Amino acid sequence: MQSYNHLYHLLETSLRQMNDSFAAEPKELYDPQKYILSLGGKRIRPLLALVGCDLFDADPSEALHAAMSVELFHNFSLMHDDIMDQAPLRRGSTTVHEKWNTNIAILSGDAMLVKAYQYLANSGNAKLPELLKLFNRTAIEVCEGQQLDMNFESRTDVTIAEYLHMITLKTAVLLGCSLHMGAIAANASPDDQQRLYTFGKEIGIAFQLKDDILDVYAGNEKFGKQRGGDIISNKKTFLLLKCRELANAEQKAEVNSWLERKDFGKTEKVQAIKKIYEQLNIQTISEAEVQKHYTAALKNLEPVSCDPQKKKDLLLFAENLMNREY
Amino acid sequence: MQSYNHLYHLLETSLRQMNDSFAAEPKELYDPQKYILSLGGKRIRPLLALVGCDLFDADPSEALHAAMSVELFHNFSLMHDDIMDQAPLRRGSTTVHEKWNTNIAILSGDAMLVKAYQYLANSGNAKLPELLKLFNRTAIEVCEGQQLDMNFESRTDVTIAEYLHMITLKTAVLLGCSLHMGAIAANASPDDQQRLYTFGKEIGIAFQLKDDILDVYAGNEKFGKQRGGDIISNKKTFLLLKCRELANAEQKAEVNSWLERKDFGKTEKVQAIKKIYEQLNIQTISEAEVQKHYTAALKNLEPVSCDPQKKKDLLLFAENLMNREY
Repeated sequence: MQSYNHLYHLLETSLRQMNDSFAAEPKELYDPQKYILSLGGKRIRPLLALVGCDLFDADPSEALHAAMSVELFHNFSLMHDDIMDQAPLRRGSTTVHEKWNTNIAILSGDAMLVKAYQYLANSGNAKLPELLKLFNRTAIEVCEGQQLDMNFESRTDVTIAEYLHMITLKTAVLLGCSLHMGAIAANASPDDQQRLYTFGKEIGIAFQLKDDILDVYAGNEKFGKQRGGDIISNKKTFLLLKCRELANAEQKAEVNSWLERKDFGKTEKVQAIKKIYEQLNIQTISEAEVQKHYTAALKNLEPVSCDPQKKKDLLLFAENLMNREY
Repeated sequence: MQSYNHLYHLLETSLRQMNDSFAAEPKELYDPQKYILSLGGKRIRPLLALVGCDLFDADPSEALHAAMSVELFHNFSLMHDDIMDQAPLRRGSTTVHEKWNTNIAILSGDAMLVKAYQYLANSGNAKLPELLKLFNRTAIEVCEGQQLDMNFESRTDVTIAEYLHMITLKTAVLLGCSLHMGAIAANASPDDQQRLYTFGKEIGIAFQLKDDILDVYAGNEKFGKQRGGDIISNKKTFLLLKCRELANAEQKAEVNSWLERKDFGKTEKVQAIKKIYEQLNIQTISEAEVQKHYTAALKNLEPVSCDPQKKKDLLLFAENLMNREY
């Protein structure tokens, strides 16, 4: 997005400096950190930290340390999640535990989490206590979200409410935290800080729900994942949970038989589940849930005291996140 | 130690409160943390944090948050190290990754590291920046030490200097950090803070070297580990490295043949290696190295401006650590 070009530029410079700041030895501890950061990603979280600061006409570089710390934290969590999920690929490249080994992925991840705190520690003493408390709370919540996500794998009675709670913790609070940290760096009012936090959190929920929808309904190859991958792997997404909630006895039996089958044609399974989704209007219901959280986000952004144009830019950015890749 | 009874009492109360502070859900995230903390241990690190504060006649409870954070950090590192070392037992009980599973041990450990930072964040705003920087540096060093330790397993050319560097990072700096944090909490002078740090670090090195010696020469069962366990597992301890440094061609060949053998009688191997240690005077040399670091520690404690009786108590405590379980 053009209006954020200067923020992206700041970010890229800072990421390059961070890359150069890693110690050389022991290389098994530092190379994996540089590697996962080099795989790119959309840098949404550090960008939101800068945006949260820029909104209030403060110098966005005031939020650069916080931005680096959320990006490091996000990549630490990916590195450890990939071990737990036994994922072979991350952003199209070999995961750290596959490229090196599990021990190295555990320890590099640990060191990356500490490095996140090192950046935070350089945020300026006046704001440090507040930033640290917010960051700690968010980090704990992300761990809780990951644990709930793992617990859901072996449960058959996950409710929609539990699912929304899980994605709030695992994904959404870090987006809220990023904007909130930026607002702290900008000396925004506590009310505006809280509004931006909630805006980011609601956008995060909408973003994750959209992810669930795109996994099934993405119109082209840009989305970068196997179409229907969640269906094939029985992932308990909003769509599947809503489907099981609404299904009649016959539909429920068919869904369950697909979930239990070990041997199946992937395309056949995706088609069969999609057919039931269509019967139950799951796509529309899911889009409505996205919209609900998007609206809640808007409602929180509206009263924030800042330049209306900057508010529009943030909304456009959020909309682009929501409507990506169809 | 009687003179530290009031500090141990403070510590136990605080550990109990910490135990009660863990959230109930998700239990897979919190039960392992409570479990590993319940296994006991000597609580040396948190005690040193309180001692570092008490030395300067400050209220030791000023250092309680720092004390809890080093204990949490230490237990986090044990939880992750046990995964990496595939250890079945910790303090005589099943390790977390064995009792639950590896994923739970990774994630609980992560959450425990964050909880360490939560305690630190409550240390009082004035001292937070300084405490956080020290804690971060130490945490990174401990990760580096663990990585070096793992690297050493597959290397045959580890030098004594490299070994001393590794144990400094993996074990000693956290003892120095604990005392240093206590001294910060007590508003000790920067010079005295640094002296206590170095005292703790040197005691830590001496402590680890003593551990290497006790593994081979502990006189009774109190030490709690299999006698000669390090010899059986080819662990590159100070004793083995010094032995390889001093051995003549014949002795070197015998040591190497034991290191390479896959099939051997454990007692036979321990006896054979011990015989060569005796020929080369390894125990005495190792005790001299312990003494060297103990003396360096003393030299740093001497000029610290505090009640001489409290200095004596700390020395007695350090001596007890050194001369334990013979």
